[in-house]
Amino acid sequence: EVMLTSERYRVQRLPFSRVSDGDVAFFERMMPGRVITNPEELKPFNVDWLKSVRGCSKLMLKPQTTAEVSQALRYCYERNLAVNPQGGNTGLVGGSVPVFDEIILSTVLMNRIISFDKVSGILVCQAGCILEKLNEYLEEQGFIMPLDLGAKGSCHIGGNVATNAGGLRLLRYGSLRGTVLGLEVVLADGSALDCLASLRKDNTGYDLKQLFIGSEGTLGVITAVSVLCPQKPKAVNLAFLGCQSFAKVLETFTTCRAMLGEILSAYEFMDEKCMELVERHLKLSSPVTGSPFYVVIETSGSNSTHDEEKLNSFLEQAMTSGLVTDGTVATDDKKIKASTWFIWISLIHQMLWSLRERITEALTHDGYVYKYDISLPVGKLYDLVTDTRALLGQSAKNVVGYGHLGDGNLHLNITAESYSHSLLDAIEPFVYEWTARYNGSISAEHGLGFKKKQFIQYSKPSEAVFLMQRFKAMLDPKGILNPYKTLPSNF
Amino acid sequence: EVMLTSERYRVQRLPFSRVSDGDVAFFERMMPGRVITNPEELKPFNVDWLKSVRGCSKLMLKPQTTAEVSQALRYCYERNLAVNPQGGNTGLVGGSVPVFDEIILSTVLMNRIISFDKVSGILVCQAGCILEKLNEYLEEQGFIMPLDLGAKGSCHIGGNVATNAGGLRLLRYGSLRGTVLGLEVVLADGSALDCLASLRKDNTGYDLKQLFIGSEGTLGVITAVSVLCPQKPKAVNLAFLGCQSFAKVLETFTTCRAMLGEILSAYEFMDEKCMELVERHLKLSSPVTGSPFYVVIETSGSNSTHDEEKLNSFLEQAMTSGLVTDGTVATDDKKIKASTWFIWISLIHQMLWSLRERITEALTHDGYVYKYDISLPVGKLYDLVTDTRALLGQSAKNVVGYGHLGDGNLHLNITAESYSHSLLDAIEPFVYEWTARYNGSISAEHGLGFKKKQFIQYSKPSEAVFLMQRFKAMLDPKGILNPYKTLPSNF
Repeated sequence: EVMLTSERYRVQRLPFSRVSDGDVAFFERMMPGRVITNPEELKPFNVDWLKSVRGCSKLMLKPQTTAEVSQALRYCYERNLAVNPQGGNTGLVGGSVPVFDEIILSTVLMNRIISFDKVSGILVCQAGCILEKLNEYLEEQGFIMPLDLGAKGSCHIGGNVATNAGGLRLLRYGSLRGTVLGLEVVLADGSALDCLASLRKDNTGYDLKQLFIGSEGTLGVITAVSVLCPQKPKAVNLAFLGCQSFAKVLETFTTCRAMLGEILSAYEFMDEKCMELVERHLKLSSPVTGSPFYVVIETSGSNSTHDEEKLNSFLEQAMTSGLVTDGTVATDDKKIKASTWFIWISLIHQMLWSLRERITEALTHDGYVYKYDISLPVGKLYDLVTDTRALLGQSAKNVVGYGHLGDGNLHLNITAESYSHSLLDAIEPFVYEWTARYNGSISAEHGLGFKKKQFIQYSKPSEAVFLMQRFKAMLDPKGILNPYKTLPSNF
Repeated sequence: EVMLTSERYRVQRLPFSRVSDGDVAFFERMMPGRVITNPEELKPFNVDWLKSVRGCSKLMLKPQTTAEVSQALRYCYERNLAVNPQGGNTGLVGGSVPVFDEIILSTVLMNRIISFDKVSGILVCQAGCILEKLNEYLEEQGFIMPLDLGAKGSCHIGGNVATNAGGLRLLRYGSLRGTVLGLEVVLADGSALDCLASLRKDNTGYDLKQLFIGSEGTLGVITAVSVLCPQKPKAVNLAFLGCQSFAKVLETFTTCRAMLGEILSAYEFMDEKCMELVERHLKLSSPVTGSPFYVVIETSGSNSTHDEEKLNSFLEQAMTSGLVTDGTVATDDKKIKASTWFIWISLIHQMLWSLRERITEALTHDGYVYKYDISLPVGKLYDLVTDTRALLGQSAKNVVGYGHLGDGNLHLNITAESYSHSLLDAIEPFVYEWTARYNGSISAEHGLGFKKKQFIQYSKPSEAVFLMQRFKAMLDPKGILNPYKTLPSNF
């Protein structure tokens, strides 16, 4: 069993009230049958997806409406009960599970699509809608969600917005800060804030919703979102390539950005260690082997003939100039062509993406995982992996690097047979200091949650952190919303 | 001469200190030669571009560095002196000029480019850089600014960010909330906040910079920005088309969005009244005439052959199905083709864009202009113009509609020989009530500034406005930064 967070990290419980029988009775009256107190049932919601942190909440609430969230929070605020808002519980920094006995406020039953406008592409839905379900719904209407990530099958859109999730389509469609047009949020005291606009442009006063995007449930509970969705591309092509060095990975990126231009929708990379782990633990096999680095390039466009022409001339160029040494291409439109490249059909897409998307999963099979999610100037990206590998030597099982190269985002992962304090001390603050030296971010997309909050100063000046704390104090003066998360204690 | 704002709008000066000789002497010591007190020299900075509001500031400061801005604000804060931050003074809602005797803090000398990274496309520069100059600088390196607007020749990037400017490229590159990666801001008390990151992704704590984007100088003075710039498109094509009804304008949009897909970079419309005014007042002549509506479509892409193919098949389709009845196409690459379309060469681009971009200017020649900048569901966009025209009848000189149709953004403009209270009373709150009925925004991109702040409640619920006021009180407790702007008084 996973060690209790409070024991491993030696944190002190803050003086919130404890849930009483009277509280449970109150919630039972408010949402009958949607109040969970059975410890067995609560178990999976107390532990994070990585099985790295564990809380001991004794109560989970499953509201269906904003009014219920509002009523529940008003009560908790008055009673001084701490609350842990939870979506699909797929976070990687311990932000989505309680640290102690916080009440889990789950959005699992808030999964209603409110409206979709086919002219504007604007979707309005409740916070608990699952990303993949939304995408399926949109695809039927010729649109897609502007974000995509490995956890899509279980993550909630509310959680995506609360953590400002990045993922695989950011390179093309930009961040949620641009695509989220409106939010409905319930504040700590239970008051609802309706900023659920469905307009591409609105400059009437301060953009309050931005404060809640990426605040990890510490400033308010997101109950509904309005999202601008791009049209479903008519043609999607995928190339899976092998490169002989990281310098070639970079040069390939520059070349393909210039030649693929507006149809480039993803540029991901992984090192050979990643590939090894995916093959070993998930029994996936790669059509391209024997290279120290692999690259996944995706194009999405409106004209399959044009897109294939662009992709082919890029591949021609990349091969001729020795940037890539091996590769596989999958096109969406079921035409199989003869060329020096193997051309695969539709289903192969999923398999190729799996090699990249399921690295996280493969890593969990390799042992305890120390995860780092770093933004760096793209040229420096892999040096951190090399330096960390050299530093740790035999004390780590595997040190791997992969990520969203097009966004300057590296996922550095270190595995070991089991958790050890001494290995952690060898990694931290080394990785954070290294990142700070190049003005990088110690959390590109995962957020700070519980595990990274003490390291915020490596990426933000103290004036900024003070200001964040003032915002927190203003919006949640009792600190009941997702306590122990995002902002450092005793700063 | 323009009537004093305080007289026309009957506003009361708040009890700020008045600038003394001692204050002037202090600033002279701090930035010798960059302190303006000569009334003649101050004149153009007291009046807005539309010549619709006039303040009576007796002092303008021209800092060159963030340290100077910081020092100046610290002094003003202690002395309780009100400050009007000013960029290129091209705002349309009276936000960029003093209402009374606020000190004008100009960014005109803060025009240094700090860095540009050709790999990532990230530009870091001071707030006073002129948009067009930045774009010229970037074009030489194969990039462009992610925004473009009519005022580009004089507006400052700091002002663009402070007002969350939209403009002509929003459809393609998204809003500044996505493309601005970092800001440096000086707060009311003179403390500097360094959020000048140059990373595409950074989820370490709350995204403080968002609060300053679009806050119109009321929460802090932006001193430097970091912007993600797209690559310069290799091919730019323009089509200028005539449509017989607004329904056809809409249908043409749906068709071209589907057929042009990722290369569509602008979809603008104007009615025949606009065209008439541009021709009459600016002596521009249009190659396409005799239609009640005109549309400008721009494509930007990486492959001129592909782009022209896409554009041609769209035009073919649009003509065959009778969506458009007349048109002109200009391609960038100097190939002149024979077709049913007139094909023009490079320079014609500018001329065609002028027809759209210079409408604002043409309107100012037509008399006093009542300007409205409305977001609406795209299908409702032109109904507001028709209804306003019917309502006002002979009491208005011209009622025109144009704007960024692709973004659901209408510019409704009403001209009259001169300003009149009774005409204003006929227009307002009619236009705002009409907009609120369809959940639109009463300011899509212009902001609220001085002229629209009292109408915020048509687009924002009172809880949201209260929260904005709490942010203002927290960040600027004395209210010295751009007073009388953005948020309503006595709400």
